[in-house]
Amino acid sequence: MAEARKIIIDTDPGQDDAVAILLALASPELDVLGLTAVAGNVPLALTEKNARKICELAGRPETRVFAGAVRPLTRPLVTAEHVHGRTGLDGPELPEPTMKLETQHAVDFIVETLMAEPEGTVTLCPLGPLTNIALAMIREPAIVPRIREIVLMGGGYFEQGNVTPSAEFNIYVDPQAADVVYRSGAPIVMMPLDVTHKALTTKARIERFRTMGTRVGTATAQLLDFFERFDEEKYGTDGGPLHDPCVIAYLLKPELFSGRQCNVQIETVSELTMGATVVDWWNITDGPRNALVMRDIDAEGFFALLTERIARL
Amino acid sequence: MAEARKIIIDTDPGQDDAVAILLALASPELDVLGLTAVAGNVPLALTEKNARKICELAGRPETRVFAGAVRPLTRPLVTAEHVHGRTGLDGPELPEPTMKLETQHAVDFIVETLMAEPEGTVTLCPLGPLTNIALAMIREPAIVPRIREIVLMGGGYFEQGNVTPSAEFNIYVDPQAADVVYRSGAPIVMMPLDVTHKALTTKARIERFRTMGTRVGTATAQLLDFFERFDEEKYGTDGGPLHDPCVIAYLLKPELFSGRQCNVQIETVSELTMGATVVDWWNITDGPRNALVMRDIDAEGFFALLTERIARL
Amino acid sequence: MAEARKIIIDTDPGQDDAVAILLALASPELDVLGLTAVAGNVPLALTEKNARKICELAGRPETRVFAGAVRPLTRPLVTAEHVHGRTGLDGPELPEPTMKLETQHAVDFIVETLMAEPEGTVTLCPLGPLTNIALAMIREPAIVPRIREIVLMGGGYFEQGNVTPSAEFNIYVDPQAADVVYRSGAPIVMMPLDVTHKALTTKARIERFRTMGTRVGTATAQLLDFFERFDEEKYGTDGGPLHDPCVIAYLLKPELFSGRQCNVQIETVSELTMGATVVDWWNITDGPRNALVMRDIDAEGFFALLTERIARL
Amino acid sequence: MAEARKIIIDTDPGQDDAVAILLALASPELDVLGLTAVAGNVPLALTEKNARKICELAGRPETRVFAGAVRPLTRPLVTAEHVHGRTGLDGPELPEPTMKLETQHAVDFIVETLMAEPEGTVTLCPLGPLTNIALAMIREPAIVPRIREIVLMGGGYFEQGNVTPSAEFNIYVDPQAADVVYRSGAPIVMMPLDVTHKALTTKARIERFRTMGTRVGTATAQLLDFFERFDEEKYGTDGGPLHDPCVIAYLLKPELFSGRQCNVQIETVSELTMGATVVDWWNITDGPRNALVMRDIDAEGFFALLTERIARL
Repeated sequence: MAEARKIIIDTDPGQDDAVAILLALASPELDVLGLTAVAGNVPLALTEKNARKICELAGRPETRVFAGAVRPLTRPLVTAEHVHGRTGLDGPELPEPTMKLETQHAVDFIVETLMAEPEGTVTLCPLGPLTNIALAMIREPAIVPRIREIVLMGGGYFEQGNVTPSAEFNIYVDPQAADVVYRSGAPIVMMPLDVTHKALTTKARIERFRTMGTRVGTATAQLLDFFERFDEEKYGTDGGPLHDPCVIAYLLKPELFSGRQCNVQIETVSELTMGATVVDWWNITDGPRNALVMRDIDAEGFFALLTERIARL
Repeated sequence: MAEARKIIIDTDPGQDDAVAILLALASPELDVLGLTAVAGNVPLALTEKNARKICELAGRPETRVFAGAVRPLTRPLVTAEHVHGRTGLDGPELPEPTMKLETQHAVDFIVETLMAEPEGTVTLCPLGPLTNIALAMIREPAIVPRIREIVLMGGGYFEQGNVTPSAEFNIYVDPQAADVVYRSGAPIVMMPLDVTHKALTTKARIERFRTMGTRVGTATAQLLDFFERFDEEKYGTDGGPLHDPCVIAYLLKPELFSGRQCNVQIETVSELTMGATVVDWWNITDGPRNALVMRDIDAEGFFALLTERIARL
Repeated sequence: MAEARKIIIDTDPGQDDAVAILLALASPELDVLGLTAVAGNVPLALTEKNARKICELAGRPETRVFAGAVRPLTRPLVTAEHVHGRTGLDGPELPEPTMKLETQHAVDFIVETLMAEPEGTVTLCPLGPLTNIALAMIREPAIVPRIREIVLMGGGYFEQGNVTPSAEFNIYVDPQAADVVYRSGAPIVMMPLDVTHKALTTKARIERFRTMGTRVGTATAQLLDFFERFDEEKYGTDGGPLHDPCVIAYLLKPELFSGRQCNVQIETVSELTMGATVVDWWNITDGPRNALVMRDIDAEGFFALLTERIARL
Repeated sequence: MAEARKIIIDTDPGQDDAVAILLALASPELDVLGLTAVAGNVPLALTEKNARKICELAGRPETRVFAGAVRPLTRPLVTAEHVHGRTGLDGPELPEPTMKLETQHAVDFIVETLMAEPEGTVTLCPLGPLTNIALAMIREPAIVPRIREIVLMGGGYFEQGNVTPSAEFNIYVDPQAADVVYRSGAPIVMMPLDVTHKALTTKARIERFRTMGTRVGTATAQLLDFFERFDEEKYGTDGGPLHDPCVIAYLLKPELFSGRQCNVQIETVSELTMGATVVDWWNITDGPRNALVMRDIDAEGFFALLTERIARL
C-alpha cells in the first residue's frame, strides 16, 4: 500500500466539518498531521474545542489540534450560529474534551510543517475561512511552492452564494485571505456550492448512519439532523448540502468529482458582491487557470464512501 | 379581441433583436408605438439603420424608428462585433433602408409617449443596454409611475455572464443605466441568461424558418445561422441562445416562462464583477423585490410561437 | 472693444451663485446666452426660480433661464439647506419672479447653442453639480470639441472637502457627471476650495456692498450675511468662502488667479472618498493634464472687482 | 528623573528611519526595547540589515533587532529605491553589521512584549508600512488595550500624498494593515506629510551635522544629502521633508507639534485613492476621533533637538 497522504485540516467545526474530520480519521490513506482551528462558523474558542471533541469521538485523542486566527485579516468576524447552533456542533451530546490543545499557534504549525516535510508532500484541506492559510503565506511565502495541493471547500459559481446572493460563507468571512490564497500560485482544488448542493443529506442517507449501531454513527446522524434543518427550510429540499466532507472524499476518490481548470478571482472591492468567487468557467479572460473548480459529484458514491468509512470508527 | 398592448422596443440590432422585432411586428396583440435605437451590439449609426432594415423586411415601413444614445452614461462604449459581425446584422443580404429615421431623439420620444398615453398602458421592451431608458428616467422622473411594465433581456444569475464571468453584455455595457432602472421602482420582468440559454437555436429549429419559403423566413434562418456560430463554438452546444425574442414572447404567452419575484441589484463598483445582476433568488436579504426574474422557459413552446408568427410575415 | 465673450451659466442658486450671476450680468465683457438651472444646493424647482429672481434683481428680466436636471445621473439628490436656507436664497426678501422660464430643457439649450454658435466661442460656467453638462455631452458628444472652455467651481485638493472630508459639494452631488466632464477632453479651468477658501466674505468686505446705497448692493450684503454664517461657525474665520463668483471673475480678470495644468480624476468608486477630485499637482502620474487647477487668488483684487461691478447694477 | 519610556520602533530604513533610530538611541528618556524591521522602502532583507547597521553606527550593538513581514497583507510589495537608493541607506559607507539578528519573528516579539510588560507602558513607533503592527493585532487582539500609544509617521491630509496624488508611501504600501490599526481602538498619534513637509533638511541644517566632527554626525549629513535629492527636485525646495524623526521627537518634546483629535479612515476600496488617510479635520462626520493628527511643527526646535542629540552619539 502506498504511503498515507499527509494532510493538515484547517477547520471551524461546524457539523459538516465534524463529518469531514471523522471521514479523514477513519481513512488509512490519509495521515492527519494536525487540525488547525480558525474562527468561522462559531468563534475560535468553540471551533478548537469542537475539533478536540470530534477527535475524541473518533477515538483518536492523540491527534494534534492547534488554535489559529480569532479574526479575519481585515473585516469583523461574521459567524453562523443560525445554521450550526450556539455551540457550532449542536445535535449530539458530546462530552467536554479531555485531550489538550497544542500550545503552538496554528499558523506557526502550518509554516513549520511545510518547511520541515519534503517539498510537495503536504496537502492543506481548508474547510473554513482561509485566514490561517493566508497568514501562513504572509508569514513565510516560501511555503507556497512546498504545498502539494490545497483542496478547499468554498465559493460557488452557478450556485453563487449562501450567506449573500453573491458569496459563500467561507469566502465571505475573509475575502482578503481568500484573495491571498488564490493569488499565491499554489495548486487549488475548489469544492464550491455547485458540488455541495448536489450532496444532499436526505433522510434515507442519514438513516444509514443512525442504523450503524455505533456511537459515531449515531452522533453523525444527530449532527446531520441538526445541520440540514436550516437549508431544508431555505431551499425546500429533502436534506441539506453536505459541504466539507467533499474535500476529504476528493482525496480518497477523486473520480467522484468532475470539474474544470479555470481562472478564479475573489471579489474584495464591492460590498454588494464581497467574497464572490469569480470563476472563468468558459475561459473568456486570459487570467491564469489557478484552480480546478469542481462542478459535479457522484452523490451516491460519495455517501457510500462516507457511510463505509464512518462505520469503521 | 382585447385592445393591442402598446409597447416601445428599445433595441440595438443585433440578429436576436431583429428576430424579436419581427415577432412583435407579426403579432396583432402588440401595438409597436416605436422602435428606439441605442448603441450596444454595434454603434448607434448601425443599430438605428438595422432597426429600419428589419421594419422594411417585415413589410412595415410605417413603423417609427428613433435614434437614441450613442454612448453609455459614464463608461466607454463596448460593442460585440465578434458576435454579430461588422454590421450587427451579418447573415442575410438586406437592402439599405429607404424609410426615414424620425428626427425626434429616442429619449424624448419615450418621455413624451409615457406622459401622453394613459398611465399604466405603455410597456417598455429593452433588448440592449439600458441607456435610453435611464436617460428618460433622469430627464423626467414622472414617467416612472406611468410605465406599465419593463420587460427586458439582461443579466443572469445561475448563468451569470457572457461578456465577463460575472456580467451579461447588455448590463455590462451600461451598468450605471441598469442601476438607475432597477432602483426606479418601475415593475420589471427580467429575462436573464438563465432563460435564454435554454432557448437554443438548434439546427432543426432554424430549419423550420428556412423551409417556410418566405423572404422573412429565409432571412430569419440566415440571421440565426450567423448568430449561433459564436456561442456554439464557445459552449459546444447545438445552437446558440436566442436572447431577445424571449421578451416579446413573454408579452404574447407569459405561461411559457416561470420565475420568481426577487430583489435585484446591479454591481457598479468593482471592475471584477462590474455589471453583475445580483439576484436574491432565495430571499436572504431584505431588499425590495423589484423584479420578476425568469428562470425557466418552455423552449419548444417558444419556438413554436416564434415559427408560427414569423410565418405570417 | 472686443466682442463680448459668450457664456452659459449653469447654476443652482444658492447665494454665492446669485452673486456670480449678478457679477456676470453687470459685466459688458460677457454675453450671458442663458442661465441653465440644475438641482443642487436646493431642488430644481427652487434653483430655476431663484435664477429668475436674480435676473430681475439685476434688472435683466430678458435673460433666458432654462430648467435642467432634477436629479443626478445615478445617485439620489443631496441638497444643502443647512447652508443656504430653505429657499436657497435666504437672506434678502426677493419678490416672486414675473419673468417666464423658457420651455426648452436646459440640456437641449446647451446642446443646441454649442452646435449653432461658431466652434470655440461658447464658454460654460458651471457653478453647481455637473449633471446638465454631462447630460449634454452624453446626448451629443459632438459638442465637446466646440466648447471654448469650461470654467467651473468645484472640488479641492489641499482643501479637499466641505460636505465630506474628501469631497466638495458640487462634485459630491454628482460624481458620475463630474467624471464624464473631466474625461471629456474639453478644456477645464477649475476653481477649487483651495482658491475659494482664500476669498473670505469678511465683515469689512460685506460692508462695502451694504453701503452702496443700491437695491442690489443691499441685497448682496444680505445674501452674504446669511451665507457666511454656516462656514464662519465651522471654520471660525471672519467671513465664509465666496465660491462661485470666482468663476466669473476669472473670465474678467484671469490675472487674479494662479494655478497649474494637472491631471484631475474623479473618485466614483469608494463611498469613503466619493467625489474627491484627485489632482496630480506634482505630476507624479502620467495622466493627461486635463484641467488648469487654480490654487491662489488675489482676494483683495477679487473683492475690488466684485464691488465695482455690483455697484453698476 | 522619570523612568525611561519603553518603545518598540517598527521600521524600514530608509535614511529618515535611520535618523529617527539614531535620535531614539541617543535619548535617555527612551528605552528602546527592540527594532522590528518590515518590508517597505526596500525589501526586508535590506531593512533588517540596515537597522543593525544603524545600531552599530550609534555604538549600540546590544539593541535587539527583529525581522518581520516580508510582504504586505494582501497587496504586492511596492518599494522606493528611487528615493532611498539601491540599499535603502545610500549616502554614507556603512560597514556590514556584525551584530546578530534576533531569531524571533518581529510580530511575535511585539505580541510577547505587550503581553509581558505592564499594561499601558509600551509605545509603538511605526516608521514604515503598518504590516507588522496589524499582524500582531490579528494574531493577538488582546494586545490592543495594552498599548500605551502608537505614534506613527504616515498619511497626509492637506498634503495628501507623495507616492500617488492621494496617498503617502507608508499607508499606500499596506492600506489593509493601516485599516486594521486605525480601526483597532488603540490611541494613535499621526505624523502626516502636513507636518513632515514643514521639517525641511535645508543645507544649513545638514551642515550642522557635518560640522559636528563625529562619525555619526558625518554619516547623518551624508544620509540627509542623499535623501533630500529626490524631494528637492520634485518640490523645488531647499531640502526635503524629514519624515520619521518627527515620531521620536514627539516622544521627547511633544510641545514641538500641534494638531487635533479627529476621525481618520483609510481608503482600501478604490485604486484611484488607495491608501488615502481620510482625516475629518473639521469634524463633519460622527466617526470616532481615533487619532491625534498633527498639522504643525516648530521646525527650528525640532532640528535643534535633533542636532543636540545626534551630537551625543
